[in-house]
Amino acid sequence: MESPVFRLCSCISYSKTFLHPISTINSPKLYSIQRRKKLFCSAPSDSVPVCSEGGVSLSIGTHVIPHPNKVEKGGEDAFFISSCKGGIIAVADGVSGWAERDVNPALFSLELMAHASNLVEDEEVQYDPQTLIKKAHAATSSVGSATVIVAMLERTGPLKIANVGDCGLRVVRKGQIVFSTSPQEHYFDCPYQLSSEAVGQTYLDATVTTVELLEGDAVVMGSDGLFDNVFDSEIVCIVGSYNNIADAAKALANLAYDHSQDSSFDSPYSQEARTR
Amino acid sequence: MESPVFRLCSCISYSKTFLHPISTINSPKLYSIQRRKKLFCSAPSDSVPVCSEGGVSLSIGTHVIPHPNKVEKGGEDAFFISSCKGGIIAVADGVSGWAERDVNPALFSLELMAHASNLVEDEEVQYDPQTLIKKAHAATSSVGSATVIVAMLERTGPLKIANVGDCGLRVVRKGQIVFSTSPQEHYFDCPYQLSSEAVGQTYLDATVTTVELLEGDAVVMGSDGLFDNVFDSEIVCIVGSYNNIADAAKALANLAYDHSQDSSFDSPYSQEARTR
Repeated sequence: MESPVFRLCSCISYSKTFLHPISTINSPKLYSIQRRKKLFCSAPSDSVPVCSEGGVSLSIGTHVIPHPNKVEKGGEDAFFISSCKGGIIAVADGVSGWAERDVNPALFSLELMAHASNLVEDEEVQYDPQTLIKKAHAATSSVGSATVIVAMLERTGPLKIANVGDCGLRVVRKGQIVFSTSPQEHYFDCPYQLSSEAVGQTYLDATVTTVELLEGDAVVMGSDGLFDNVFDSEIVCIVGSYNNIADAAKALANLAYDHSQDSSFDSPYSQEARTR
Repeated sequence: MESPVFRLCSCISYSKTFLHPISTINSPKLYSIQRRKKLFCSAPSDSVPVCSEGGVSLSIGTHVIPHPNKVEKGGEDAFFISSCKGGIIAVADGVSGWAERDVNPALFSLELMAHASNLVEDEEVQYDPQTLIKKAHAATSSVGSATVIVAMLERTGPLKIANVGDCGLRVVRKGQIVFSTSPQEHYFDCPYQLSSEAVGQTYLDATVTTVELLEGDAVVMGSDGLFDNVFDSEIVCIVGSYNNIADAAKALANLAYDHSQDSSFDSPYSQEARTR
């Protein structure tokens, strides 16, 4: 298995985000669609298949649907993908509570991802996602905060993941989810977040995991807007229904959007809220 | 952080197990308690605190409550703990469907764990849990099958996990679960399993993951009997309520037992069954 193919599907949709310790805001669960083509540090972005060089390859599809109230500013989610070494994908989700302080919540996540995309070949990073978060955070001067997840594929198969907050990642293999990240939060709806303020978290608070990928695996990454609205069983179903991973990413984002508009849909978020 | 302490709590309780492709059996959700003191390849075992040598240390507590109908044969769950290098813990859950063929379902899991405990210092294993499963499985001559999970702590912090089937592991950090394994199954209630027969799975089917542990983390490992009867939120609560990890393991097993006897309790298993 010298040249396995990993399908990597990044689906980023709207996110309800919260500022800590500022009081939270409940964004209405509505979406609209906006597209722009960018490979690095983009939010939102159209579906873009990308292949990395070397012994392993990624097939990456992305799709972003920002909150309708945030479309003009491009939404608060940012991400980048890179074919560096085995391939890198990262998502940051700006904390919308900053709007209460007349701060554009998108700036922090956009700048964070811009620095991260520029630092992937940095000597100190050494292909370590936690160090990439550390250096990108240190370089970010915008006021604000964001949840963030970074996943780096090594050419030999391991996918290394560093996660701060409630962005998420799933690995789908042979019709079932074999790996999930766990969200970190201070309390319900208040996730861990990198911040311009001292009250926030740092790279030291990241959960760092590695999962050995196998040929044919699909990796689904997104902000909480995806996982709050789409059940894991639905993710498995959609991933299995599309040969083109870009189409799968689009279908996942659209399903999250549709569910968010359906007041009768008992979403993962609704169920979790009841439990709490 | 040269000598961090990781608390490792292995709670093993009864498990409903199923033979593939033989028809499934629904074990009644009942427990009784049996104790024996063994550090290696034991099932069941009393709570035993153990510390490893070197830069990192484990505090391990274990507790087993076999199914009441299986008490005479010692239950079908087997496990071992080892202080080799950073520490190793493994659980195997014998598939009870073999009793239909007049095969003692405990023998396979017991022999598998016996070989695994003898192989931890094998040169080929190289502290790789997937290779340990491979070699232990190859050495096992008993007829039967079992789900299995093996976790190995490296002295520097990473906990490497190989998992076949529906045994599980959680990492609890600062009052929340930051890492969970995902069960693998052919269909509901029929988990992936190592087998004496060609229809079973092998080490190649293991999900292999790594999580970077931090000082003070608690690791909860068990068969499906634990995770089918105890919610993650309850695991977090109990782990946080006990300074002694052996007491926490006992409390978790007892809670699983109590829930299994409470027909009005809407367990994780019941909820999953409804979803399916």
